[in-house]
Amino acid sequence: MTGWTLPQPMKRALELAEASAAAGEVPVGAVITRDGEVVAEAHNTPRETCDPTAHAEILAIRRAAESLGQERLTDCELWVTLEPCAMCAGAIVHARLGKVYYGASDPKGGAVEHGARVFEQEQCLHRPEVYSGIGEARAAQMLREFFMVRR
Amino acid sequence: MTGWTLPQPMKRALELAEASAAAGEVPVGAVITRDGEVVAEAHNTPRETCDPTAHAEILAIRRAAESLGQERLTDCELWVTLEPCAMCAGAIVHARLGKVYYGASDPKGGAVEHGARVFEQEQCLHRPEVYSGIGEARAAQMLREFFMVRR
Repeated sequence: MTGWTLPQPMKRALELAEASAAAGEVPVGAVITRDGEVVAEAHNTPRETCDPTAHAEILAIRRAAESLGQERLTDCELWVTLEPCAMCAGAIVHARLGKVYYGASDPKGGAVEHGARVFEQEQCLHRPEVYSGIGEARAAQMLREFFMVRR
Repeated sequence: MTGWTLPQPMKRALELAEASAAAGEVPVGAVITRDGEVVAEAHNTPRETCDPTAHAEILAIRRAAESLGQERLTDCELWVTLEPCAMCAGAIVHARLGKVYYGASDPKGGAVEHGARVFEQEQCLHRPEVYSGIGEARAAQMLREFFMVRR
C-alpha cells in the first residue's frame, strides 16, 4: 500500500469508495477535477436511490456538467477507482472528458481494456487519454472484501 | 409509412422523438412498458438539462426504476426509436431489461448491432431479447431532417 504517493483526487476517490462500501453499495468512487480543483465527486448509489444507472462515474459526470453549466467536460479529468463499464465509458464519450485515470482493472465488467472496449471502436466520437493502475491495489482489495462478505 | 400498424408503445416513442426535435434535442424517444402498461417515458434532454447522460433510454430507465421501486426491470420492455449507444446498452444490462424494441439502426453511434456490440460481449451479465426495425422509417426520417437543418 503506497497511499501517500497517490494523486490527491485518486485518494479522495478511494475514500468515496470506502464510504460506498459502508453504505452497502459496491465500493467505487469517482472525482472530476478541472485545473487541479475538484468539480464533482460521487460514489455508487444504485441501491440507495433505486437507480440502476447510479454508478459513481455517471453521478460525477452529471454533477460536474450541472455545476459547470456545460454539457461537455473536455477540460476535465475523471478519477475513478475501477475500470469503467460500457455505460460509464459511453457517458465519458458523450461528456467528451479529456482524461480518465482509473484504479483497478475489471475483467468482468470493464469496457475500457476488456469486453466492449468502447474507446477502441472505430465509430468512437471521442477518445479520452486513459491512465490505469493508479491506486489499484487498494481499490481491488476493497472490492474483494465487499464481495467476500456477500457471496 | 405504416404508422397505424405499429405497436402503441413505439407510436408513443415516435411522438416523444418528435417532441424532442421540437425542443431542439436529437429526436429520440423511449417508452418502458410492463404487462402492456406504460411505466415511464422520455425523450432526449442533454441540452435542456445540461446533462450529457440524458438520453431517452437512460431517463426512461431511471424513471421506471423509481416509479416501480425496483432497481431491476426484468419484467419490463423498452421501446426506443433509435439503436441504443454504448452508454444506454450498458444501462439496459444493469437494469436487466427483459426486452428491447428499437426503430432505426445507428451505424455511427449504435452499440447493439454496431461498434461495441455490448450484448454480444462474453462478459455481458444480461442479454435482453432484442427486436429492431419497428417504425424505423419514421425514426430515421426524423433524424435526417433534424441533422439536415443543423449541418
